[in-house]
Amino acid sequence: MITAFVHIQTEPSAANGVAAGLTAIEGVAEVYSVTGEWDIIAIVRLADYDQLAKTVPDQIGSLKGIVRTSTVLAFRSFTKEEIAATWDIGLS
Amino acid sequence: MITAFVHIQTEPSAANGVAAGLTAIEGVAEVYSVTGEWDIIAIVRLADYDQLAKTVPDQIGSLKGIVRTSTVLAFRSFTKEEIAATWDIGLS
Amino acid sequence: MITAFVHIQTEPSAANGVAAGLTAIEGVAEVYSVTGEWDIIAIVRLADYDQLAKTVPDQIGSLKGIVRTSTVLAFRSFTKEEIAATWDIGLS
Amino acid sequence: MITAFVHIQTEPSAANGVAAGLTAIEGVAEVYSVTGEWDIIAIVRLADYDQLAKTVPDQIGSLKGIVRTSTVLAFRSFTKEEIAATWDIGLS
Amino acid sequence: MITAFVHIQTEPSAANGVAAGLTAIEGVAEVYSVTGEWDIIAIVRLADYDQLAKTVPDQIGSLKGIVRTSTVLAFRSFTKEEIAATWDIGLS
Amino acid sequence: MITAFVHIQTEPSAANGVAAGLTAIEGVAEVYSVTGEWDIIAIVRLADYDQLAKTVPDQIGSLKGIVRTSTVLAFRSFTKEEIAATWDIGLS
Amino acid sequence: MITAFVHIQTEPSAANGVAAGLTAIEGVAEVYSVTGEWDIIAIVRLADYDQLAKTVPDQIGSLKGIVRTSTVLAFRSFTKEEIAATWDIGLS
Amino acid sequence: MITAFVHIQTEPSAANGVAAGLTAIEGVAEVYSVTGEWDIIAIVRLADYDQLAKTVPDQIGSLKGIVRTSTVLAFRSFTKEEIAATWDIGLS
Amino acid sequence: MITAFVHIQTEPSAANGVAAGLTAIEGVAEVYSVTGEWDIIAIVRLADYDQLAKTVPDQIGSLKGIVRTSTVLAFRSFTKEEIAATWDIGLS
Amino acid sequence: MITAFVHIQTEPSAANGVAAGLTAIEGVAEVYSVTGEWDIIAIVRLADYDQLAKTVPDQIGSLKGIVRTSTVLAFRSFTKEEIAATWDIGLS
Repeated sequence: MITAFVHIQTEPSAANGVAAGLTAIEGVAEVYSVTGEWDIIAIVRLADYDQLAKTVPDQIGSLKGIVRTSTVLAFRSFTKEEIAATWDIGLS
Repeated sequence: MITAFVHIQTEPSAANGVAAGLTAIEGVAEVYSVTGEWDIIAIVRLADYDQLAKTVPDQIGSLKGIVRTSTVLAFRSFTKEEIAATWDIGLS
Repeated sequence: MITAFVHIQTEPSAANGVAAGLTAIEGVAEVYSVTGEWDIIAIVRLADYDQLAKTVPDQIGSLKGIVRTSTVLAFRSFTKEEIAATWDIGLS
Repeated sequence: MITAFVHIQTEPSAANGVAAGLTAIEGVAEVYSVTGEWDIIAIVRLADYDQLAKTVPDQIGSLKGIVRTSTVLAFRSFTKEEIAATWDIGLS
Repeated sequence: MITAFVHIQTEPSAANGVAAGLTAIEGVAEVYSVTGEWDIIAIVRLADYDQLAKTVPDQIGSLKGIVRTSTVLAFRSFTKEEIAATWDIGLS
Repeated sequence: MITAFVHIQTEPSAANGVAAGLTAIEGVAEVYSVTGEWDIIAIVRLADYDQLAKTVPDQIGSLKGIVRTSTVLAFRSFTKEEIAATWDIGLS
Repeated sequence: MITAFVHIQTEPSAANGVAAGLTAIEGVAEVYSVTGEWDIIAIVRLADYDQLAKTVPDQIGSLKGIVRTSTVLAFRSFTKEEIAATWDIGLS
Repeated sequence: MITAFVHIQTEPSAANGVAAGLTAIEGVAEVYSVTGEWDIIAIVRLADYDQLAKTVPDQIGSLKGIVRTSTVLAFRSFTKEEIAATWDIGLS
Repeated sequence: MITAFVHIQTEPSAANGVAAGLTAIEGVAEVYSVTGEWDIIAIVRLADYDQLAKTVPDQIGSLKGIVRTSTVLAFRSFTKEEIAATWDIGLS
Repeated sequence: MITAFVHIQTEPSAANGVAAGLTAIEGVAEVYSVTGEWDIIAIVRLADYDQLAKTVPDQIGSLKGIVRTSTVLAFRSFTKEEIAATWDIGLS
């Protein structure tokens, strides 16, 4: 599973419209309006790396009301189970 | 449900250790090493706003190997169902 | 009580109009024109976390004359009384 | 009344100690650990401009565990009453 | 005496016009076109803190040709006489 | 007359000591502790351009407790008298 | 061989068009839409330094839909063979 | 094929050593010392997305002499052939 | 001799036109289109400090196609001869 | 001729020493201590592109007292003569 965090800055007053548009795009799992310099964070979850290009720059990138985006891609996820299996969790 | 995205910059070579420590903290739902200027994004999901202070600045903030954090908090989540119920999705 | 600091950059000459609009929004407790890179800081105080979405991105976000906002949310407040009850205040 | 917002970045794990120290300083009205790039926002309220120098750079500036501060000073506060008295609030 | 340094970025070719406008505002003591990312620095000197709001955001803020401003306010001034009276100036 | 604004960031708790050192340097006309990302602004006024190198990078630059400086130099000063003599001040 | 990495920010929805235009320019070896604050990275490979000016600021710079570019030029490339010939690779 | 651009800032005088270390890591296709704020750009080419985590944060991330990294990942590559097959290249 | 480096960001496709305009201004000694976040660096060499205001903000500042400038002024130049005369060049 | 502008930030009080070191490096044509966020700008002029790697990252990069460098490389130089030969200088 490929996970990406798309940070989105929208035009003033356009956040809710952009958020609505995001939820209609396949692969967009969760959409939040957020605090801080960005207006929206969308979590994209895709089975296959090749779907990213169509989902992020093509579909998300073409939504009206978006000023700027910055996508952060997950290298790897860490879960309790994996950690227990591989590392000593004796962290102070 | 309160959702927060904790962006973490770690000391060089410390990312995996910090990620392991994060998975042991209650309320930390997902942990990823990521591309871009940050090293890790942790998704925190909590039932109650008052738990944030203990989870983020106290527990996450005290993990060794962290240089800098910036937490982004969700105002609201948007789902297809909610959108269909409230907005006309006829976005061009 | 949820406390948030909404940092606002306005269009040139629009600060006073935006400030006036802010005072009419429920939950906006204090409004200041300020020094530095931002033009206005509004302190939002709300009883319930769920009211944030309506107050900040919806109502504040839709005021005319706003170029950019960045909201900072309080995790926890610290008071003398709490500190005395929990920490040794013998700070040099 | 002079109002100032002191934005503080602390050393990792030092936020609570710095916050405690802040509450012991006269003129520091409210202290919050916060989301975003800063760790703490302290609201300083003073009767007289000349007290600022002693409160902010001297006392706050000398607390252990502080990496960086940026103080924002209020030019003017806006209240509903003042706005009603001076501006036409007929905002669309 | 309250001293403030108003850093101003103007629209291309507008610096001289903005500078001229600044000199007509009461409380603006000195105006310079400058090197670096800002185009103008104006030194404001006022007897009373309450005059700042009218001088900086209202009057300076409403001059045509201004893109962005950032005001820095003096906490305290340091003079040789004061230093001699209070500190040992035996600096190597 | 050459006018320069030396913006100085000091080590935590070092601002007053650096300010004291500045007042002892010839050509440093005014020294202020200030709000914002910088800790001190020093106004340097010199009769001759060639004195700048000795005053700013050499003398100011060698003061203990300084982390970073950024000097802004005046191209030209604007005064009411000059403006009246050269421009039509009929600014709307 | 001269190698350059041209980082390109495009207008919203313009990335694919700009990318298409890039592939038609001689010397542009590879073109990618990418994560992060930039939208596109183009790798330029040229035999001769003097061709850079025509390729980057002239041809690439004149493509429609580009907001901002930042070109990074290679000083030297490092290959396993060169390293083996000159350095001890006994890196821990 | 997965393509990534790893931007690396090294400690002063450490660039050549880090570059040498990079060339010994499988998946690192090209390594350049470069102009601009970064010291090195490494092009990583991998057959499989899952190899990224081991190559970038683990192996590259653990090289001595690295201060900071920022990895940019390619969504999609654009080639003349693909463009000719899909888009009308009639760009003015 | 006064030396200044004028860093210039131009509108897309305007770099060559701005560069041409620069070469026609007296005091502009060298003009380069450059890599990095700026598009042009112009070296200004003037006999007299007072000429700077006319050359940089007035003449250069009024050229069409300029988005932003940042001028860096030389405090002092260092030459081999001066260094040999004053410092021990035995730098390890 | 290859022209490069090496922007250098030095450790506090180290500027003069670094400047001296620079003048001893072949290819470094001019060295200035400067205003603004950088401490030194060195102009490098080399006959051949391949010399850059040895001059900038190797020799300059290894000088003691340097915190950070950012090199800007000239694509092309513009001179009055060339402009007159190629462009109509009838700029309004």
